[in-house]
Amino acid sequence: MRVNGKHHRTVWWENNTLKLIEQNHLPFRFTVYNCEDYRQSCKAIDTMIVRGAGAIGATAAFAMAQAIIENDDDAFILKAKLAIEATRPTAQNLFYATNRVYQAAIDANNRKEAALLCAQAIADEDVRACQTIGELGNLKIIDGMNILTHCNAGWLAFVDYGSALAPIYSAHHSGKKIHVWVDETRPRGQGARLTAWELANEGIPHTIIPDNAGAYYASLGKIDMIIVGADRIAANGDVANKIGTFEKAIVAKTFGIPFYVAAPSSTIDLNCMSGKEIPIEQRSADEVRYQQGLNKKGLLETVLVCNSNSAAENPAFDITPYSYITDIITEKGMFKPAY
Amino acid sequence: MRVNGKHHRTVWWENNTLKLIEQNHLPFRFTVYNCEDYRQSCKAIDTMIVRGAGAIGATAAFAMAQAIIENDDDAFILKAKLAIEATRPTAQNLFYATNRVYQAAIDANNRKEAALLCAQAIADEDVRACQTIGELGNLKIIDGMNILTHCNAGWLAFVDYGSALAPIYSAHHSGKKIHVWVDETRPRGQGARLTAWELANEGIPHTIIPDNAGAYYASLGKIDMIIVGADRIAANGDVANKIGTFEKAIVAKTFGIPFYVAAPSSTIDLNCMSGKEIPIEQRSADEVRYQQGLNKKGLLETVLVCNSNSAAENPAFDITPYSYITDIITEKGMFKPAY
Repeated sequence: MRVNGKHHRTVWWENNTLKLIEQNHLPFRFTVYNCEDYRQSCKAIDTMIVRGAGAIGATAAFAMAQAIIENDDDAFILKAKLAIEATRPTAQNLFYATNRVYQAAIDANNRKEAALLCAQAIADEDVRACQTIGELGNLKIIDGMNILTHCNAGWLAFVDYGSALAPIYSAHHSGKKIHVWVDETRPRGQGARLTAWELANEGIPHTIIPDNAGAYYASLGKIDMIIVGADRIAANGDVANKIGTFEKAIVAKTFGIPFYVAAPSSTIDLNCMSGKEIPIEQRSADEVRYQQGLNKKGLLETVLVCNSNSAAENPAFDITPYSYITDIITEKGMFKPAY
Repeated sequence: MRVNGKHHRTVWWENNTLKLIEQNHLPFRFTVYNCEDYRQSCKAIDTMIVRGAGAIGATAAFAMAQAIIENDDDAFILKAKLAIEATRPTAQNLFYATNRVYQAAIDANNRKEAALLCAQAIADEDVRACQTIGELGNLKIIDGMNILTHCNAGWLAFVDYGSALAPIYSAHHSGKKIHVWVDETRPRGQGARLTAWELANEGIPHTIIPDNAGAYYASLGKIDMIIVGADRIAANGDVANKIGTFEKAIVAKTFGIPFYVAAPSSTIDLNCMSGKEIPIEQRSADEVRYQQGLNKKGLLETVLVCNSNSAAENPAFDITPYSYITDIITEKGMFKPAY
């Protein structure tokens, strides 16, 4: 995607440094975060400087390469791999990336070189997969459609293009007139902050709505399609994605609205028979209790938005059973998870 | 409810002044707002210093009385009535109150006295109705239940006790151990701010969750009952309530969870045949785009929480069709809207 006239990936390798777009500052500030070693890269995943299935995967791949470049002893590599995998438990792309870079390195004579080449390949494959998802998904989009998306499965969630937003970009570039309903996606607001910023940047008409408003717009016939990303897809087609996805899938089924999941095939975990086996990350309750935004002075500020002595819980993902999903769109084609 | 050791109503008449608990400052500050005339009372409804079906109704009743005390000419009274009714379009209790005080006044020799007595009667009836709703609703609550509620239909939404929270208070006082899931209720956060504050004040175990998390907890079997209030109930049993209520009702139906609506009978609008006829208030998009909270210095501050150049929409209510509702609990008894 172009930002301020320059093409950017979300995650890239430059001057022996892993560079990330700092997503905690968006949409208010566009800054680049440098990870000098794998520990910093782990911290960037953990604190959500980088987030989103594919972007986490590419970052984990480069983090593995950073560790191996630092010290290619077996024990060191394995310890680093475990540390990277401990950052976030749900996204399959993370484990796909660490395993692949690890395997490429230990099989090679020059472990350092092999690890970096493999990480770069994972990032490049992510870009190509998302491009193809965009072209395939666009086949489902009809001129004039109102499309709802939840969270951010756009360019920022991958290395480029995105998964759920890739068909929307493809439709827009092919001249179809579309309008996107952007769920806020509490508690972290990835819809209101990131998806809205991406769509504004691309000039695609869109409207931010509270997560609560899905059934309201569906009941008015104002949602023609729902499309979301995925953090992990089980072998039976159950999908782990941002908390709230399941509610939208239930709303879609109630109103007969097609519900699509778009994800590169690296998101599929064939070792996971069903959604019940996917671990759901429980994040800090403070993400619910506090909210960050821009104050009147133009500074980022965090405010308490609830009763101070109440408990809160913050499950980061939910599982949408395969029976709620119309099609899963991957770079290898579309398939109905029920079959 | 007792606050700081003293019993308070939400709306009351004292020293020829209408007094309201300033709800925009809760849970951070407990302050009382004085309305010296009906114009100030209208502004208090419009800006949500007072909100919630019954509290709006009582405020509108006293506002009518204020207008009639100011000037009991027919033309003046009618103009004031229209101004009060223009503040918020959805809550039936508002229209119930203005019509009843108007009728009581124009039929009386002493219009001023009759208006004030009628307004006070409406407030007192609201208290008694909510007490009865609490006792009846408690019959549905079993020891150990996890109950989800959306928005605030507690003490603060009425003159005292509340509607949806009244059975919860009644169950708690009768010794039943219960736990309440408190939906945040974006965009204005009435759950996270007001319901959580009320429950903490009463010592009832509760947990704030994002609106997005309903289906997740339901799928884990952690929600035994959902209970909400109502802003207007059509003759066929369709219910207008805070945006997001319909999504929770759909989730309840999907998982076979009982879904109760608690409201005094003054909320029922027999002139409205179905939910399609209930006007849905569209509030300012800035309520979605900005969020108010307490900053690190302990001051109320408003921050921008989305992409600045994106549109937003803010429908304040939705319609839950009668077929999704297990029982409507009123002070006159429980009934199944489907029959």
